[in-house]
Amino acid sequence: MSPEQRLADLGLELPEVPAPVASYVNCVRSGNLLYLSGGLPVMDGAIVTGQVPRDISVEDATAAARNIILNRLSVVRGELGSLDHVARIVSLQGFVNSASDFYEHPKVVNGASDLLLEIFGEAGKHSRIALGAAALPLNAAVEISLVVEVR
Amino acid sequence: MSPEQRLADLGLELPEVPAPVASYVNCVRSGNLLYLSGGLPVMDGAIVTGQVPRDISVEDATAAARNIILNRLSVVRGELGSLDHVARIVSLQGFVNSASDFYEHPKVVNGASDLLLEIFGEAGKHSRIALGAAALPLNAAVEISLVVEVR
Amino acid sequence: MSPEQRLADLGLELPEVPAPVASYVNCVRSGNLLYLSGGLPVMDGAIVTGQVPRDISVEDATAAARNIILNRLSVVRGELGSLDHVARIVSLQGFVNSASDFYEHPKVVNGASDLLLEIFGEAGKHSRIALGAAALPLNAAVEISLVVEVR
Repeated sequence: MSPEQRLADLGLELPEVPAPVASYVNCVRSGNLLYLSGGLPVMDGAIVTGQVPRDISVEDATAAARNIILNRLSVVRGELGSLDHVARIVSLQGFVNSASDFYEHPKVVNGASDLLLEIFGEAGKHSRIALGAAALPLNAAVEISLVVEVR
Repeated sequence: MSPEQRLADLGLELPEVPAPVASYVNCVRSGNLLYLSGGLPVMDGAIVTGQVPRDISVEDATAAARNIILNRLSVVRGELGSLDHVARIVSLQGFVNSASDFYEHPKVVNGASDLLLEIFGEAGKHSRIALGAAALPLNAAVEISLVVEVR
Repeated sequence: MSPEQRLADLGLELPEVPAPVASYVNCVRSGNLLYLSGGLPVMDGAIVTGQVPRDISVEDATAAARNIILNRLSVVRGELGSLDHVARIVSLQGFVNSASDFYEHPKVVNGASDLLLEIFGEAGKHSRIALGAAALPLNAAVEISLVVEVR
C-alpha cells in the first residue's frame, strides 16, 4: 500500500503548508535529499505550547509531536507532489521543551516516529536524535525536523 | 551579482578563518556538501557571551548571530577559494543560549538567515532549525552551523 | 594502519549493538552516508546519568562521551561489516546534559572526538556541533550522533 493510501486509510488529512515563522524556507532539496525546517505543532489553529511536564502532559506533548509530522508531510507533498515519491525517512531530530528533570523525551518523540512508521512502513524507519531544549520558538512544546530521501 | 560582489557591496569583510576550540575541524566536504562546525560569535576579538535576554539583549544576540555568518563564510571561502562556488545554503542550525521563558529564537537566528539572503539571494534561502540551548560552549550567546551545497 | 587494527592496538572492544530505546533504528544509509541515531553512554550495563557538573564530573562525562563512540562504532561495524569501510567521519553532534552556567562542553565532547582521531587518523577529523541540553533521554549525561561517509 502506498503512503498516500495509508494516510487516507488512517483517516488523516494534511493541513495547509505552514508559513515559516521567520527568514527561511520550509525545505531545501539537495541531490535526492530533502532537508525540512524544524516544524512546530499547530492544533485548532494555535501553536501547542508549554514546558513538559510542568505546562503540558507527556500525553499531550506526544500528540503534539504526532501533529508536527502532519504539517511536515504537507511540506513534503507540496515539494514532491505526492508522499509516494518518498524513498526513505532518513533522520528525525526531535526537540522537547523540557524541565531539567524530565527524561521521557523518547516517549514524546515516539508520537512522531510512530506515525512515520504507520504511514511509510519499512521506508519510515529512521535514525533519530531526541533531546530536551531549554526553550523553543514561540514556546512550542515540541519541534521536529526531518531529512527525507526522494525516490 | 555574485556573492563575493554582494559581500563587497555590503561593505563586509570576512575575518581570519577561526581556530576550532577543540578536537575537530572547521568543515568537512562529502560529495558536493560542505558540513560546517558550529561557529560562535567573535566581535572585537572576544566571544560574545551570555544568556538571552538576561545577560545580552535580543538585539545584541541578533547582531551576534549575523556575525557568526561572517566567520562561517570565511571557512567556506577558505575551503572553496570563493563564495561564488556556493550553489545553495542547504540548512542552518541555530542554537540560542536562552532562559527557559525566552521564545524569540526566530528573531535572533534571523540575524544569520537575513545576512545569508543578502549575500546569496535565492541561493541563500535555507531550511532551518532554531532552538534554545541550556548553555553553549564558552558561554557563547549563539551557535550556528551550516550545510552548504557546492557548485 | 586500518581502523580495525588501531582499535585492537588500543585494546578496545566494541560492545553489542545497542537496542534503540524507542521507535527508530540505529542508523540509516542514504547514498554513501550513514546517519547514526543519537547514542547514550552505557558503562557496566547502565546508562551514565546526571547533569554536568552537578551530578557527574567533567572528567567522568568526558569518559562517557568516549564510551558512546564505542557503541556508535558497534553500530557502524554492524552495518558495514568492518570499520575499514569508513571513508570519513563527516560530522558529530554532541549534547551535554548541562547546568546553565556550565561552559566546558568542548572538553566533554573531546572525549568522543579524540577517540575518533585515535581510531581513524586523518579520516576521523570531523565537523562538530557541541551544546548544552536542558535534559537528555533517560537522564543520560551525554548524547552523541554521527554522520559517516562510507567507502
